[in-house]
Amino acid sequence: MLASAGILIPSTVAGLYGRGVLMERVAEFVSHWVNEAGVSDGAEFLRFPPLMPRRSFEDSGYFRNFPNLVGTVHCFCGDEEDHRLLMRTHDAGGDWTSQQSASDLVMVPAACYPVYPAVAARGPVAAAGQIFDVCSYCFRREPSQDPNRQQMFRQHERVYIGNPEGARAFRATWVDRAKELASLLGLPFQVVPANDPFFGRTGRIMIRGQIEQALKLELVTPSVAESGETACVSFNLHLDKMAQAFGLEFEDRTQPHTACVGFGLERLALAVFWHHGTDVGGWPRALVDALVSHGGRLP
Amino acid sequence: MLASAGILIPSTVAGLYGRGVLMERVAEFVSHWVNEAGVSDGAEFLRFPPLMPRRSFEDSGYFRNFPNLVGTVHCFCGDEEDHRLLMRTHDAGGDWTSQQSASDLVMVPAACYPVYPAVAARGPVAAAGQIFDVCSYCFRREPSQDPNRQQMFRQHERVYIGNPEGARAFRATWVDRAKELASLLGLPFQVVPANDPFFGRTGRIMIRGQIEQALKLELVTPSVAESGETACVSFNLHLDKMAQAFGLEFEDRTQPHTACVGFGLERLALAVFWHHGTDVGGWPRALVDALVSHGGRLP
Repeated sequence: MLASAGILIPSTVAGLYGRGVLMERVAEFVSHWVNEAGVSDGAEFLRFPPLMPRRSFEDSGYFRNFPNLVGTVHCFCGDEEDHRLLMRTHDAGGDWTSQQSASDLVMVPAACYPVYPAVAARGPVAAAGQIFDVCSYCFRREPSQDPNRQQMFRQHERVYIGNPEGARAFRATWVDRAKELASLLGLPFQVVPANDPFFGRTGRIMIRGQIEQALKLELVTPSVAESGETACVSFNLHLDKMAQAFGLEFEDRTQPHTACVGFGLERLALAVFWHHGTDVGGWPRALVDALVSHGGRLP
Repeated sequence: MLASAGILIPSTVAGLYGRGVLMERVAEFVSHWVNEAGVSDGAEFLRFPPLMPRRSFEDSGYFRNFPNLVGTVHCFCGDEEDHRLLMRTHDAGGDWTSQQSASDLVMVPAACYPVYPAVAARGPVAAAGQIFDVCSYCFRREPSQDPNRQQMFRQHERVYIGNPEGARAFRATWVDRAKELASLLGLPFQVVPANDPFFGRTGRIMIRGQIEQALKLELVTPSVAESGETACVSFNLHLDKMAQAFGLEFEDRTQPHTACVGFGLERLALAVFWHHGTDVGGWPRALVDALVSHGGRLP
């Protein structure tokens, strides 16, 4: 249905899709809405590409918890002779990728990851705290037939770096704003405590801790997958975990708390199609008005 | 200068940058301008993520010509025991990436690459020809201190698929439009025949062919690098090369010609800063008016 309506363009790899104009209009509107809703944040606007230095990534500890989701970029570093060998390997139907070596780059797993090392490089964090606005493709290696589980998807995130009370207030504000967005999009929703799919046995212990401390909340809605609810927005308290990982410090050498809220652009758009169909004529009036007012006539 | 003004945010890897708000405003304006200038194209709007299936990529022959620029995505496919080994390797300061295996994904080297397999999958190409609009991050493995040579950069492309005359007409139209854009941006420019940095000895022969047939033109301007001119827009005739590589056919089984024009969003924005400085107050009036009219008050 999504493919035949030109909403998603499947590729030969599961979980890797192109997008048509209507899908993109909804996704862009969500991103625009986040900017408008958060205008009083005084956020610093930053944009990072979907790759980050492997060194910063190692600092994050991500591959300790989610090794199965990580993507590293490998490259060819050889000379002309190596290249002839590579081409011979390929032309004989062999595995030319074995001649690739790990580079110093990895795929960004969440839009906020490049923020922490960039801010740490500036020196001490301001006592008053600061909010950052980022939006990026993210990579997670989980090939799936469920279009809500894409290997390459976009998150529009706001990130708070400051004190513990500020982090909680930031998150509470954005939970309210996200509920407004879900209402405007005409989606039934709940905001619920959530857990990340940590890897292995140690991971299962971490899930328990995360739920008990309510560090992660998600806005969920029924969407596409018959299996239940899909998380479209997540609201995360990191305590001082990110500060420790990336060396963020206040002037007095103590460590700030951080928090982030991430809007899944593809998931929110897909939820709109799931609930209202692919014919804009049948969409809620307020949603159509908002889309038109942002980007002009709908296709 | 670009870093201290918050235009680019350097990382610990050469050629990998974040971007500040003013840089992004100019880049987004260029992308918007391409859409407006090309509105009469009746282009089909498509968006693809910056990864593509390795199989399609192999069809393209790109790694035969530019093996040194390719990035492949590798992943961890092991179980809990492998993961413990991986973590022990990392914690001992070893190379944990050797436990990554090649996935079925590669980095997109040019924004138009995913278009050809997607269109081929639809069946025969319409005799009248068709134009597509794409915009994506592209990856090229060429670490450099020159900010015009980023490893991850964005191209806004228009792609023509149809007959040889249509391909030439499409390119001529976009050369004219790109000249208009360069004038609006206040950039001195030339449109010149160009060549790609093919790899190795066979590559050097291909360069000669490309120049003799004027298959590739570039709009160049002095920018940042003292070494000379920087290509900011490229205009390419592929003859039937892409059709052959990706299996594009007309109804009668003959192969279409293709052409593409690619606007380098980062390079065009950097050229603006190079020629006009980082203080918007000193920029050409027409440019400021156009930026404000598109995106509101400038920072």
